[in-house]
Amino acid sequence: MPLVISPLHDFPMIEPGDGIAPAILDCMHKTGVAMNDGDVFVITQKVISKAENRYYFLDQVTPSPQALELALDTDKDPRLVELILRESNEVVRKRKNTLIVEHKLGFVCAGAGIDQSNITSIAGRERVLLLPTDPDRSARMIRKELMDATDKQIGIMVIDTQGRAWRNGVVGMCIGLSGLPALVDKRGKNDLFGNTLQITVIGVADELAAAASLMMGQAAEGTPVVHVRGFPYPLEEGNFNDILRSKDVDLFR
Amino acid sequence: MPLVISPLHDFPMIEPGDGIAPAILDCMHKTGVAMNDGDVFVITQKVISKAENRYYFLDQVTPSPQALELALDTDKDPRLVELILRESNEVVRKRKNTLIVEHKLGFVCAGAGIDQSNITSIAGRERVLLLPTDPDRSARMIRKELMDATDKQIGIMVIDTQGRAWRNGVVGMCIGLSGLPALVDKRGKNDLFGNTLQITVIGVADELAAAASLMMGQAAEGTPVVHVRGFPYPLEEGNFNDILRSKDVDLFR
Repeated sequence: MPLVISPLHDFPMIEPGDGIAPAILDCMHKTGVAMNDGDVFVITQKVISKAENRYYFLDQVTPSPQALELALDTDKDPRLVELILRESNEVVRKRKNTLIVEHKLGFVCAGAGIDQSNITSIAGRERVLLLPTDPDRSARMIRKELMDATDKQIGIMVIDTQGRAWRNGVVGMCIGLSGLPALVDKRGKNDLFGNTLQITVIGVADELAAAASLMMGQAAEGTPVVHVRGFPYPLEEGNFNDILRSKDVDLFR
Repeated sequence: MPLVISPLHDFPMIEPGDGIAPAILDCMHKTGVAMNDGDVFVITQKVISKAENRYYFLDQVTPSPQALELALDTDKDPRLVELILRESNEVVRKRKNTLIVEHKLGFVCAGAGIDQSNITSIAGRERVLLLPTDPDRSARMIRKELMDATDKQIGIMVIDTQGRAWRNGVVGMCIGLSGLPALVDKRGKNDLFGNTLQITVIGVADELAAAASLMMGQAAEGTPVVHVRGFPYPLEEGNFNDILRSKDVDLFR
């Protein structure tokens, strides 16, 4: 069976308090495609953050001395740096225009994933958008609503686009999920010639996140949700934290 | 239009000297799916390495003093370490069971991408498989053969599965391409609200590589090639080296 990734067209603009699940149901209804067991919906963090009102006005933020210092080092807005620090466990690297942190959610990323694009300003006041507080929980709640409404076994993944240490270009990565595996462990399985496979834990959620991100685009396309049919693994409950490399085996910070 | 990724089933076992393009044409013919302009084939490096006879018998390798020392540090076979060093520009990190290098092709990866799974041994002699010498060139040649045979505008990408600095699980990544972009640069474009987008160079080749890898599996499935329809960007000639972050802006080695 092929993997089919379809953007949900005409997904509505999401405002604080709006429901994501009803918007998905509405879009699917309009496309005329019935949901199947095994379907996955991949949702960009941005619409979930908007629904959960993770907006901050920069003029409401007072930078700490540490933020002021880091702002000088990185040439960034001190108020933005303050928000980055509040969202993070630690600073991993800093350089002009770049602040790499371990986000409170456990992953290493630039600028704590705080977003300034596709955000309306209000009366000239600059707003930014933080990542969802608990993307796993957001995924679980959206999944429950969709499964209650459709009686189908589906999976939900929340993604963000992130950079990589040694490669240019951002790619979609999983930041939370419900109802699908994060990793698939094939160690101990045999290969085609009967040899035992060595290192083969597959990052299936991140692979799907990248695939979904490819179909979302990044600029004005406005397709924050994609429908996935044909995910090639059983929809068993996954654990996002399995993706995070523990610090004691991290060679790069 | 959705993105549709279809594994080429019953792809033949590839031996040194075999043609990849004829095998793809044969598989497509059997599926009854005609090629379209805009189609992309994603090919795992392993079958290209096999076709190009990148096998090495470990008993033919004499480890250098440096290899012997690194083998002790990493608890790896000194002959394998010797091959890893020959394939690399430099060692980036070492630890028990782990040797991270910059491959001669420019990317940072574990063990220089040398493979010991899905490889037959001959008369009990251990063989390993090195990455293709020039995956871009391999992609160009396969593309030319397919385009000559079909008169369609297609793209070819060669991928490998690689680990990431801070995340568990290997994912598919581009190591060579022909006829499709490596990155798509959206800087300067406007977002939905007319703001200029900030950091938005999208790693479209790596996103497609991950998507393709998801459908190839890693163990005994034996699906080294996938057919992609609906790649959402024009098939302009890309440059693999654009993906490589130059060392002067690399924060992590």
